[in-house]
Amino acid sequence: MDIEIVTIGDELLLGFTIDTNAAHLAREFAALGVRIVRRSTCGDDAESIASAVRDALDRTGAVITTGGLGPTADDMTKPAIASIFGRGMVMDAEILANLEARWLKRFNTVLPVSNRQQALVPEDCTILVNRHGSAPGIWLEDERGRWVAMLPGVPREMRGMVADTLVPRLRDRIAPGGRVIRARTLRTANIAESALADRLGELARGVNGLSLAYLPGVDGVDLRLTSYALPAAETERALRDASARIREKVERFIYGEGDDDLAALMLAECGVREETIAVAESCTGGMLGMRLTAVPGSSRVVLGGTIAYANEVKVRELGVDLATLEAHGAVSESVARAMASGVRTRFGSTVGIGITGIAGPGGGSPEKPVGTVWVAVDVRGELRAVRALLPGDRHEIRYRASQLALDLLRWTFAGIEDANGWTAHGATSSG
Amino acid sequence: MDIEIVTIGDELLLGFTIDTNAAHLAREFAALGVRIVRRSTCGDDAESIASAVRDALDRTGAVITTGGLGPTADDMTKPAIASIFGRGMVMDAEILANLEARWLKRFNTVLPVSNRQQALVPEDCTILVNRHGSAPGIWLEDERGRWVAMLPGVPREMRGMVADTLVPRLRDRIAPGGRVIRARTLRTANIAESALADRLGELARGVNGLSLAYLPGVDGVDLRLTSYALPAAETERALRDASARIREKVERFIYGEGDDDLAALMLAECGVREETIAVAESCTGGMLGMRLTAVPGSSRVVLGGTIAYANEVKVRELGVDLATLEAHGAVSESVARAMASGVRTRFGSTVGIGITGIAGPGGGSPEKPVGTVWVAVDVRGELRAVRALLPGDRHEIRYRASQLALDLLRWTFAGIEDANGWTAHGATSSG
Repeated sequence: MDIEIVTIGDELLLGFTIDTNAAHLAREFAALGVRIVRRSTCGDDAESIASAVRDALDRTGAVITTGGLGPTADDMTKPAIASIFGRGMVMDAEILANLEARWLKRFNTVLPVSNRQQALVPEDCTILVNRHGSAPGIWLEDERGRWVAMLPGVPREMRGMVADTLVPRLRDRIAPGGRVIRARTLRTANIAESALADRLGELARGVNGLSLAYLPGVDGVDLRLTSYALPAAETERALRDASARIREKVERFIYGEGDDDLAALMLAECGVREETIAVAESCTGGMLGMRLTAVPGSSRVVLGGTIAYANEVKVRELGVDLATLEAHGAVSESVARAMASGVRTRFGSTVGIGITGIAGPGGGSPEKPVGTVWVAVDVRGELRAVRALLPGDRHEIRYRASQLALDLLRWTFAGIEDANGWTAHGATSSG
Repeated sequence: MDIEIVTIGDELLLGFTIDTNAAHLAREFAALGVRIVRRSTCGDDAESIASAVRDALDRTGAVITTGGLGPTADDMTKPAIASIFGRGMVMDAEILANLEARWLKRFNTVLPVSNRQQALVPEDCTILVNRHGSAPGIWLEDERGRWVAMLPGVPREMRGMVADTLVPRLRDRIAPGGRVIRARTLRTANIAESALADRLGELARGVNGLSLAYLPGVDGVDLRLTSYALPAAETERALRDASARIREKVERFIYGEGDDDLAALMLAECGVREETIAVAESCTGGMLGMRLTAVPGSSRVVLGGTIAYANEVKVRELGVDLATLEAHGAVSESVARAMASGVRTRFGSTVGIGITGIAGPGGGSPEKPVGTVWVAVDVRGELRAVRALLPGDRHEIRYRASQLALDLLRWTFAGIEDANGWTAHGATSSG
């Protein structure tokens, strides 16, 4: 089934708000085998709405709109689309009663006359229940089977309505056995796209007929397998088999799947192993601590740490040797190791993590350019350190440094000794 | 001038990537008085591109596309649009020479035959120079003055080309004296939308004919003034006057304008006043330190701090009195004040900031529900603390807590004593 999406709103058109509704809808429907063939954004006025929706109906006969269902004079979606179908507007008694009850409960006064327009609906439409807000959705269909589904613009309400009312409705219209689009993502860190492709060899461009996309980001390179041409019953197995083949080649670089966050994974791992963590951060300034404590329940694992931004703080708080610091500089293996073991000793944790580096844009030199980072991990007295040259701007270097430190912890727990695979950033390990 | 935007890419249509190019373009052109009347997204194939662009050309005759200019077989933008204009494709010798030179320099080998297609351009087109990437943009126009500008999809390249080549080109085509859309944003923190509207009184719904929008977010409520109906020469003065009138009413809650970040502003303020900062963070886990050190040059001001996540860390590292902690709990005025002065004393900074709270989802109680936060600021021995009940999920509560702490510092520097204005979250100050 081919459908089109029309998102309504001056805010979207003028670029003041990023359109996330259309992206969400597209993802949901792709999984059903519903193909989004075009997506348009138009302004709030009735003429623009009618024009955009009429064009879409003429092309595919199946349209979803979002926005313009509120109680103000700017909300013209229902009358504009009713006019396309040649329908008038009628007052729905049940919707009106609900609105009046909500208003009374919330504000203890009578529903304003202007808000009553939210209860006006096109003649002969089907109401789509909105469990998350006051504006109901509308389904309008003509005798030729052409239809428009009008959904609210508020993301939370729109998503709820899609799941509750639209997906079931569309599922009934889609022939069983049709092709669906499904994807599976394997998340890698600290290895470059080209190095991954080299290691994947014959799998680099696709696996078992499934496409393979490389999606680089600050977390690392995500590998996304997508099945475009199989029926629903076969896609899960195909994705599973393809994932297994990829893992055989690059397992050590894969830290998770889907939306997995490396900090959350390491926190869970520490919980299972009954480890506690203290962090010593210089260039990251607290970012690693923030990432670890973003997870609810992290207090079982994270004791805290020291933000050792100034050099005297490294000496005074973490016991870094001043002579070492002066001889090798703050961004050095010895200082990183001293920070990790120093914070572990001081906080009494089982794990200590140290990060020191040059986040830029200033502070670089020929020997230590911007992006030079040393991270160290001390697990119950066993120390490992890694040096890397991280790319990007100040934020990206800091984030990647936190990701490198977490990955070093993952390698330590997994017993992966050979860091030669870390060819991404010229990382060299010192065991 | 009315124009349409067509963004090209299966990734965008299928919802795997959020479309930010269109939003950027819309913002840039609104400032010129160029009205975006519709925005569409279509797939990568030539037929979809031709269909979407042809429709847009028929409607407005002025179209900008992004995407599909790369070197692979998926990049069909140029041939698809050339066919709409009835043009063939020709090899551009200069572009080819540049591609060959870039490839040789980067990979030390000859340009692959498949990549040569990037040098194919529509007959009689104008090349738009791309200073940030290898794919040049294309301007194609017919004898009726209908035109299409094809830009790269990579955001950084697209934005550079818009500024370098497209804005000047369009500026020449726009009649002087036309209406432009310009906006100015005043950023407030720690006051609710309804309280702001109350204080603005007659200005709440608009000022001097300019519209006023309330944009709530984790940073606070942004007030955006927009001029839609004035010529370019008058908008700056109108926005300036309207801003001044708003400031007369709610000055104390405004911490900045436009994209200003409160952490960056406070860092700069400390630099001017020759203050140094140490942070003591419990529930924020390092987020405040991260925000302050995100600014280049922050090492002149930020010494570091302590992430005191576990209670014994508050006692051992910050000198918080154990009896106090047991009597009042970790989330209390006395502990917040002890954290702020303790870290200041220990780190030898002039400013100490303490944050303690319940970020949720667990940990709440009837006396101290989730969102309860105490922040304290110690400036050269003078202590102030504020309690608030912050809304949102775990991330939002943590971020708002960092924003509250920074705002308390701002009020302290500005000599604003009366915190009764902080009606947002039930904040109560203790001087």
